[in-house]
Amino acid sequence: MNIYDVSRKAGVSIATVSRVLNGSPNVSERTRTLVLEVMDELGYTPNVFARGLGLGTIQTIGIMCSDSSDPYLAHAIYYLEQGLRSHGYDSILCCTGRSLETKQKYFDLLRSKKVDAIILAGSKFVEPKPRDNDYILEAARELPIMLVNGWLEGENIYSTLCDDRMATHNAAGKMIASGCRSLLYLYTSQSYSGAGKLQGYKDALGGYGLPVREEYIHQCPKDILAARDLLLHLHREGLPFDGVLASDDTLAVGAVKYAHAAGKSIPDDLSIIGYNNSNYAICTDPELTSIDSKIEALCTTTINTLMGVFNGGNVPSRTTIAADLIKRATTKF
Amino acid sequence: MNIYDVSRKAGVSIATVSRVLNGSPNVSERTRTLVLEVMDELGYTPNVFARGLGLGTIQTIGIMCSDSSDPYLAHAIYYLEQGLRSHGYDSILCCTGRSLETKQKYFDLLRSKKVDAIILAGSKFVEPKPRDNDYILEAARELPIMLVNGWLEGENIYSTLCDDRMATHNAAGKMIASGCRSLLYLYTSQSYSGAGKLQGYKDALGGYGLPVREEYIHQCPKDILAARDLLLHLHREGLPFDGVLASDDTLAVGAVKYAHAAGKSIPDDLSIIGYNNSNYAICTDPELTSIDSKIEALCTTTINTLMGVFNGGNVPSRTTIAADLIKRATTKF
Repeated sequence: MNIYDVSRKAGVSIATVSRVLNGSPNVSERTRTLVLEVMDELGYTPNVFARGLGLGTIQTIGIMCSDSSDPYLAHAIYYLEQGLRSHGYDSILCCTGRSLETKQKYFDLLRSKKVDAIILAGSKFVEPKPRDNDYILEAARELPIMLVNGWLEGENIYSTLCDDRMATHNAAGKMIASGCRSLLYLYTSQSYSGAGKLQGYKDALGGYGLPVREEYIHQCPKDILAARDLLLHLHREGLPFDGVLASDDTLAVGAVKYAHAAGKSIPDDLSIIGYNNSNYAICTDPELTSIDSKIEALCTTTINTLMGVFNGGNVPSRTTIAADLIKRATTKF
Repeated sequence: MNIYDVSRKAGVSIATVSRVLNGSPNVSERTRTLVLEVMDELGYTPNVFARGLGLGTIQTIGIMCSDSSDPYLAHAIYYLEQGLRSHGYDSILCCTGRSLETKQKYFDLLRSKKVDAIILAGSKFVEPKPRDNDYILEAARELPIMLVNGWLEGENIYSTLCDDRMATHNAAGKMIASGCRSLLYLYTSQSYSGAGKLQGYKDALGGYGLPVREEYIHQCPKDILAARDLLLHLHREGLPFDGVLASDDTLAVGAVKYAHAAGKSIPDDLSIIGYNNSNYAICTDPELTSIDSKIEALCTTTINTLMGVFNGGNVPSRTTIAADLIKRATTKF
């Protein structure tokens, strides 16, 4: 029993049956009633697979993220699901972890389900080696690939990005202007987004004629206590620093805890800026100045772009959104 | 025509019909024959439960949550998706918000997709008025309904719960034993889980012969600053309190911020215990003692129970998991 049986018995095209299934308005009431009666008579129940058998669309988008429990990605998934739902699309969620092999496996799985598009949420999906991204380019021949804060060049691939480089340039610049001279940069990953953030930090130093010193740039796991302990270690090693710019609020919370543990006053002895303006920024005393990376706008724009693609519109392959700096109490400005 | 009709007509439970459909050995030959005869008589064609008969399913589970960006629910979704994936199931995610009407709409949507089961993540899905839950009971005639930390009695409905009442009883008892005499209870919602937590607090007071005073029990939005401001307000009003037990870490972080703002020393002047043992608990100085509500175990057990249902096993309709108390620096014990 499948859609072909329904179409034959009702004497209408498969496309018409599909339109009925998808609630399209472009079907007469009479035809709709006929098709529904035939389905009832045949005991046909449409399901995701049946609707995927080459008849338009299953109205389902695959969302891939490395870890849906990360606060940034959790918000992304929330906004993406809500946005897709408002356009009548279901979301199939895949939490992939970080390994390339697993990502590819889930990617293939989503393709085999005939989803209408795949959204890659977060900057962890584009690998530094171009060859490692071939599977994405290949899939884009069949369905649109949407990147939320990631960037990959290719046909039928659409990126919506936060202007991370400008955001850290601006933030680091304000810290320097307010008196910081030894500004540490802490980061979690070397993704496209991560590279932009680091470059913004370097741009700001350059703009003030300050040297870029490798001993002031440190990678750290996305973990509050790991960041605190890294700073305590640098402090004990005798590295002087009066500011911390972090690529994630988690690390900035660690910097606040470091200051408390080391008896440093915030912001007089140490200025701190986080990234993502998550709820973590409000947990600490003093509360964190943080960069609002506009995750809701990124997701809304991603969905709007995708709907533009579905409707055959001429949509941009790359959209960049400016971040905001939310000033609280860990900075002097 | 559905499995419920078959169960009623044959005078056996839905679980037994399910076992027959799945070819489980735990059914007597006589019962098996009876059920098959009734199905034949009623013209019943099994669908969702018919995995063992090779009729296939869409291998997709609907996951409903009120808000996937809430840290507790974000973790739940992560563990559920991973667990389902490991059994070869896709997850369709629905973020429903709080209104009953929207929840029902999404519920119907998932049913129309012929998902194999629906998981309701979080305690917000069971309404206080029994009639408002009829749509869930009705759906359970067609497919298993799994509740993560919610409880609703009914056939083909399975609950996995944290023992919230025992958890707050234990936590409040330890606070009282360590010297607290005026213990505030802050909570966010009056769900089944919420009611259990509140009762545990009252149990502890009763156990120590202390009175339950309504002015020490306050509802508060799940918001750090709202909780801080509520406590500042109670403090200004002259209500004496030396302990705060909160139904969510968010409120407990607010209590830490209140103590800082009011110049109270933690834990000497004020003891604080949060709930969920989220990352928020590590953000504050001092770090929060918090109840670990075992969300990973709740999700793993939910998935195992669901697989048991699919395989026609004799699974419990209700499983309760004990919480842990994670001691950090906001308590004297």
